[in-house]
Amino acid sequence: MKEIKGGITAVKGIRASGISCGIKKTGKKDLALIVSEAEASVAGVFTENRIKAAPVILSQKNIKKGKARGVIVNSGNANACMGKTGYRHAEEMVDLTAKTLGISPEKILVASTGVIGDSLPIEKIKKGIPALVKKLSRIGGMDAAEAIMTTDIVSKVAAVEYKYGRVSIRIGGIAKGSGMIYPRLATMLSFITTDIAISPKLLNIALKESADKSFNMITVDGDTSTNDTVLILANGLAGNKMITDRNSKEFTLFVEALNHVTTALARMIVRDGEGATKFVEINVKKAKKIEDAKKIALSIANSNLVKTALFGEDPNWGRIVSAAGNSGVKFDSDKIKLSIGKVVVFENGSGVKGDWERNVRGVMREKDITITLDLGIGHEEAKVWTTDLSYDYVKINGSYRS
Amino acid sequence: MKEIKGGITAVKGIRASGISCGIKKTGKKDLALIVSEAEASVAGVFTENRIKAAPVILSQKNIKKGKARGVIVNSGNANACMGKTGYRHAEEMVDLTAKTLGISPEKILVASTGVIGDSLPIEKIKKGIPALVKKLSRIGGMDAAEAIMTTDIVSKVAAVEYKYGRVSIRIGGIAKGSGMIYPRLATMLSFITTDIAISPKLLNIALKESADKSFNMITVDGDTSTNDTVLILANGLAGNKMITDRNSKEFTLFVEALNHVTTALARMIVRDGEGATKFVEINVKKAKKIEDAKKIALSIANSNLVKTALFGEDPNWGRIVSAAGNSGVKFDSDKIKLSIGKVVVFENGSGVKGDWERNVRGVMREKDITITLDLGIGHEEAKVWTTDLSYDYVKINGSYRS
Repeated sequence: MKEIKGGITAVKGIRASGISCGIKKTGKKDLALIVSEAEASVAGVFTENRIKAAPVILSQKNIKKGKARGVIVNSGNANACMGKTGYRHAEEMVDLTAKTLGISPEKILVASTGVIGDSLPIEKIKKGIPALVKKLSRIGGMDAAEAIMTTDIVSKVAAVEYKYGRVSIRIGGIAKGSGMIYPRLATMLSFITTDIAISPKLLNIALKESADKSFNMITVDGDTSTNDTVLILANGLAGNKMITDRNSKEFTLFVEALNHVTTALARMIVRDGEGATKFVEINVKKAKKIEDAKKIALSIANSNLVKTALFGEDPNWGRIVSAAGNSGVKFDSDKIKLSIGKVVVFENGSGVKGDWERNVRGVMREKDITITLDLGIGHEEAKVWTTDLSYDYVKINGSYRS
Repeated sequence: MKEIKGGITAVKGIRASGISCGIKKTGKKDLALIVSEAEASVAGVFTENRIKAAPVILSQKNIKKGKARGVIVNSGNANACMGKTGYRHAEEMVDLTAKTLGISPEKILVASTGVIGDSLPIEKIKKGIPALVKKLSRIGGMDAAEAIMTTDIVSKVAAVEYKYGRVSIRIGGIAKGSGMIYPRLATMLSFITTDIAISPKLLNIALKESADKSFNMITVDGDTSTNDTVLILANGLAGNKMITDRNSKEFTLFVEALNHVTTALARMIVRDGEGATKFVEINVKKAKKIEDAKKIALSIANSNLVKTALFGEDPNWGRIVSAAGNSGVKFDSDKIKLSIGKVVVFENGSGVKGDWERNVRGVMREKDITITLDLGIGHEEAKVWTTDLSYDYVKINGSYRS
């Protein structure tokens, strides 16, 4: 497996485009389209928020048959909490895209991201769609990646290629993230394409497994949005024999390669988290159950006190231990060992003696910090990626709509 | 019932003191003592964090027989995560206090608050205790209130008096809070005294009920500390007949008066939350169950996106609705009605039309803001008090130990 350039359009038979249709006042790109020339198996993972945006509801409907041709996405407006009007707007986006492409509307999926509760400027979008379709190209993946951004500073793109026998398979992905990133589908969008031939059922299994190890393991502020969507299209143009066996070597290889793409995108999302000055890996080891390790890692990652200490480069391990204790998971404080970077700061029930603080100061000043909590009671582990909580987080989110 | 001055020492037979023994580098008061001249019924509520500080463990042990004479408290150091040394230090605090007062150590409770993981400067405390005992007085409640503060800006003191028949009963309380305030016993300390005669069993019931409506309904940043402690001493000097019946009028009256004190202290804690520029009441109404209402209110109150929007005076109701949707509680978005102040901003499944934003701008600029979410499906409600998330929160918590 090797990393390649080109993102979603590195994949056979995938064209994409991204334009500005005027939703964003800044004139930045805000409308993206991804189209597969052959009908593709499709799978999706969506927000678990009780309040689902209209495009999520419509995509969940259109995905049911497991086949799709494309995805239309806008940024700058979430089309959430807009009642029946919102749903009609999502339908209009899909209908006009389908009509312009000359395909059935049930084969088009839709996603939106941006401010919640403002009416979608549907006329602008409708005016934009013909131009968007016209711009579709085999190098349009980068434009699409830009057009789905909101407070993201950089676009997020990844792609890999691997061989199975004589067949060369490609997987490409784009994502947008920034604030509100949290498991149960972190507030984010990601669109993945691949030319592998795989049944919708197995594609769904692969995507869920992969999301659980990537997008569901990142957190910026613990909030889950109304719009979270991850979609994957697999158009079969690589020419492999259709994968239908979950226990096959082909399936395992595909999931590995997919994990590489989703993990890369997830890490990029965290690195570009709103106001982030640190990239922090929380690694909880030797737990009795994976779920326990995950709960503790998330409790640490979502603690504002831990996050502000990281921002202040303060090796305040008491807050980390306290946040672990807040997770609701049972463990024995006499058995745990906490390290910041490679420096052990807590073991045998108390802080270590000596000059640990001087050793750890350097670690705290790094941009990338790893916190490892060894529970000493089992064999399971979980890794969560997160950021610090900075002045800029407050600034960005205190004035998001102005 | 009327509010009176004097806090904990407004109560018959209660003396208190607060001094500086040198734990805080600033020279501010850091050691407090509360003593009842008669043996008192005692009850406590403690942190549910898996990691419990040594003084919590010792107080939980000493409280078991339901009788106590006093409480020694230090600020500036939490005596948490210090292993066996920490527990020995807590014992030494209790032992020396008891000895100096000439009473049994099992009758003394202990609490600590401050930085986690630094060794308690026990020699300074031991030098301070004789002076602290000497300063005990019937007007020392204010000094004690000051001596338990950490990042608190103001001391928190409340007291009430009410009559039952010919007997006049008083209840006084002090508290400290600021960061890390969260239910399951918000990271805070509170000490309450009363001269009512009541059995330890009923005192315990009264305190738990009262804490659930006050200290457990406030949140600043969703973290629960290792040291949270609420203690109440009831010394019986008011001269009423000992209350032993939960269904008695006397008990109901007492709980009402106690609620008045705990609610007042809880609101003071929120108002003084770290970096708080707003006091926000989240009121969830017409839920099916109280627990549902509470979960939703806390999900809104603990959302960093809602908190930063409040700081930015941005009436971003989409974040409030989204946070409610994140609570895990089922409700119907078409039935909910959301108001900021008295202005309805969301109903019938979407944002209201017209000039709501102009009307709500004024509300957002107020220091006190009430957010009301009507679920429209039941008859239960819950109120949670919280603050916004400001630059100063990040500043205070990014440099807490420097």
